[in-house]
Amino acid sequence: MEEVWVAGAAMNRFGKMAVSGREAASQVSLEAIERSGLRPKDIGYTFVSNAFGVAERQAHVGPLVNSALGIPEVPSVTVESACSSSSAALHEAFVHVAGGFLDAALVVGVEKLSHLDTLAATSYFAMGADYAFESRNGATFPGLYATLATAHMHRYGTRAEELGAVAVKNHLNASHNPHAHFQKPISMETYLNSPPVSWPLRLYDCCPFSDGAAAVVVVNPKRFRSDLTEVPAAIRASARAGSIAALQDRNDLTTLPASTLAGERAFRMAGVDRSVVDLLEVHDCFTVAEVLALEDLGFYPPGEAARAGAEGETAVDGKLPVNPSGGLKAKGHPVSATGAAQVVEIFEQFNGRAAGRQVSDPEWALAHNVGATGGSCSVHLFQRV
Amino acid sequence: MEEVWVAGAAMNRFGKMAVSGREAASQVSLEAIERSGLRPKDIGYTFVSNAFGVAERQAHVGPLVNSALGIPEVPSVTVESACSSSSAALHEAFVHVAGGFLDAALVVGVEKLSHLDTLAATSYFAMGADYAFESRNGATFPGLYATLATAHMHRYGTRAEELGAVAVKNHLNASHNPHAHFQKPISMETYLNSPPVSWPLRLYDCCPFSDGAAAVVVVNPKRFRSDLTEVPAAIRASARAGSIAALQDRNDLTTLPASTLAGERAFRMAGVDRSVVDLLEVHDCFTVAEVLALEDLGFYPPGEAARAGAEGETAVDGKLPVNPSGGLKAKGHPVSATGAAQVVEIFEQFNGRAAGRQVSDPEWALAHNVGATGGSCSVHLFQRV
Repeated sequence: MEEVWVAGAAMNRFGKMAVSGREAASQVSLEAIERSGLRPKDIGYTFVSNAFGVAERQAHVGPLVNSALGIPEVPSVTVESACSSSSAALHEAFVHVAGGFLDAALVVGVEKLSHLDTLAATSYFAMGADYAFESRNGATFPGLYATLATAHMHRYGTRAEELGAVAVKNHLNASHNPHAHFQKPISMETYLNSPPVSWPLRLYDCCPFSDGAAAVVVVNPKRFRSDLTEVPAAIRASARAGSIAALQDRNDLTTLPASTLAGERAFRMAGVDRSVVDLLEVHDCFTVAEVLALEDLGFYPPGEAARAGAEGETAVDGKLPVNPSGGLKAKGHPVSATGAAQVVEIFEQFNGRAAGRQVSDPEWALAHNVGATGGSCSVHLFQRV
Repeated sequence: MEEVWVAGAAMNRFGKMAVSGREAASQVSLEAIERSGLRPKDIGYTFVSNAFGVAERQAHVGPLVNSALGIPEVPSVTVESACSSSSAALHEAFVHVAGGFLDAALVVGVEKLSHLDTLAATSYFAMGADYAFESRNGATFPGLYATLATAHMHRYGTRAEELGAVAVKNHLNASHNPHAHFQKPISMETYLNSPPVSWPLRLYDCCPFSDGAAAVVVVNPKRFRSDLTEVPAAIRASARAGSIAALQDRNDLTTLPASTLAGERAFRMAGVDRSVVDLLEVHDCFTVAEVLALEDLGFYPPGEAARAGAEGETAVDGKLPVNPSGGLKAKGHPVSATGAAQVVEIFEQFNGRAAGRQVSDPEWALAHNVGATGGSCSVHLFQRV
C-alpha cells in the first residue's frame, strides 16, 4: 500500500455564498492545489461532493470544476453520503492513491442552499434520513437528534448546561476562525435563554444552514514529495462503516454504531492507540452529537463526555481539544463541504496557522464525519509529517 | 494489482416501477448476490448510484439497501456522474477490489422518475448538462444531441435512414430482451414517420424515460472463486475520462473526446486490440450517440459507423454486434441504472442466457457509458473466464 498525504487544503468563509456552487468549488480547489505546490495538471482524478446540487439545478459538477481548473480531460465523480459526503470522497481518493492507481487527487465538497427558504432547505437535509419511516412522517434532523439527546439525558443524566458547554466552547473557537459562519462567542446564559427548536434542543444546540466549499489535495509522496510547499498530513487511516438508517430500528439511542465501528477500524488500520490523538474534529451537527462522538470513538466511557466537556477538557487548551475550528455547530455545516473542511482545519493546525485556536504542537489528529443520524460514518487519522 | 471479476448481475424490467427506488435497488441487489453464489455478508462495500433520488425525497440510499440486505454495518456511498453514474460506481468498486482493499463489492444503480410529469423529468435529466451555459438557456438533451447530429450530418453526410437503422436494430434486439422497456420491433417507415423531437432527431431517435434498477457483484477470485455459480466476467480494464461539459466550448461537435480518451486508456490497460471485442454495449441515449461511440472508440473511422450500421454490421449476427440488449434506445435509460445494466447484458451474454439476441460464443465485451454529452465517460473491458 502506498503512503497517502494531504498536501494542500483550502476553504471559503462559510455562511452565505454570493457565487454558485460550481464557482466556489473551483475557487477553493485552485487554492488548495496552489498551496500544495502542485499544478492542476498533476491532478489525476477529481472527487466532488455536492449532495444537493439539484437545488442549483446542477448535477455532474466534476467536469465543470475540472474545466475551470484547465484539466477537462481528467475524470471526475460526485460522491454522496449525506452529511459525510466529502469524507466519503476522501476515502475514495485515499483508496485510489494508496492502491497505486493515482499519484494525486482532488477532493472538493460544496453546498449552496441559502437561496432557498428554511423549509425547503430543511427538506433537502431531511432527504439524508429514511424517507419512508422518518422524513415522510415529519421527522427532520432537529427532531431525530432531539430523540438521541432525550435518550442520553434519560440514561446518563446529561444536563442542558453540559450540552450548552459544547455550544459555548465551539462558538468561542469559531470566533478565532476567519472561515467560520459564526464569529461571536456566546455565554451560557444566552444558550439557556435561546428558544427551543425541538425539545430538549435549543436554538444554540443546532448548527446553522451554511453555504460553503472546501478542498483537499492528496498525493503519493513518492511522486510529489519534492514539490510540496506545506507541512503535509499523512493519512494513517481511512475507515468507514454503516448502520441502520432509521432510529426506530436501532436497539440503543445513546450511541451511533457506525461511529464506534469506523473508529475501531481506523485505530486498527493506523496501529495506534487513542492516546496519541492531539486534537479531534468531530461531527457536532447538534451539541449532543459531539458528546456521542467522543463516547462512540472511545475517548470517554458512555455518559462521561458531556461532564468532561463542561469541565473544560475539550477546550483548545484542555487535555483533549475537540473542534478547534468551531465545529459544524459554529463554523457552519454546508453538508457536502463539512468532511473536507474538517481536514482543512487539521491541515491548518499542523501548519501552525490556527492563531487564537491553535492546539500546541499537534502531531496526530482525528476527523469524524457522520451521515444523517449515523447511517454512515467516516473516521480519518492524520499524522503531521 | 488483484484480479476483479463480475460474479453476479441482475436487473428488473425497465419501464415504470410500482415500487420505490430503494425497494427496487434492494431487490436487484439481492438477486445479483444470490446468483453470484455469495451471501450478503460477504459484501464489504456498497456503491449505489441514484442521481435523482431527490425526486423521491431520498438521498443517502446506501444504508437503506444495506439494511434491506441484512448488512447495515457495511459502509456504502452514492456515486454520481450523470448518465454514467453506475459505471463510475463500478470503477470505484474495481479500484477497491483491484487495490486489495476489499474482496467483494456490490454496485447498484437505480432511478425512478415516472411519477413526475415529462417536463419535470426532462428538467432532472438536464441537470447533467452545464446549467449556466446550457440548461438555463433552455437546452435539454434532445436539443444538445440534435446539435451533435446536425454537425455529424453536415460533415459526413450522415443520413436520416442511417440513424434510423440504429433505432430499428435496437428495437429489434430489445424485442428479445424480457427486461427491455420497449419490446416491439419498429420499421424504418415507422421511424421516418415519427414526429420530430428536436430536428434532426425524431421520436424514435430518442431513448425513453424509464424507471429501473440493475446490480453487479464484483469479487477478488483469490477469495471467492470456489463459491461462484455463474460464468464470471473478468474486468480487464476500467477506465474513465472527462471533457469540457458545455458543447459551446468544444472544438469539434462530431466527437466526444472523453469517449476517445477513455477507450484508449481501456485498451492500453487491458493490453489488447479492438479486434478481440465480440460485442459492445454503448451509450445510445440518441441514435447518433451510438454512431459517435463506435467512431470515438476507434471501431470505425470518423463518418463510417452510420453506413456500416445501416449495412447490418452491428446487428446481433453482424461482424460487430452493438447493443444486443436493445441499448438505452429501446431497453430504456433509467439514468443511474444504465451503466450497471450494460454489465448485466454482458454477463447474460457470457452465460449464454440471451435467447433471441445471443451473440455467438462471446469472449470479450466492451461497455461504454457517457455522462451527459460527454463531460464524463467510462469504458470497461470484460473477458469471459
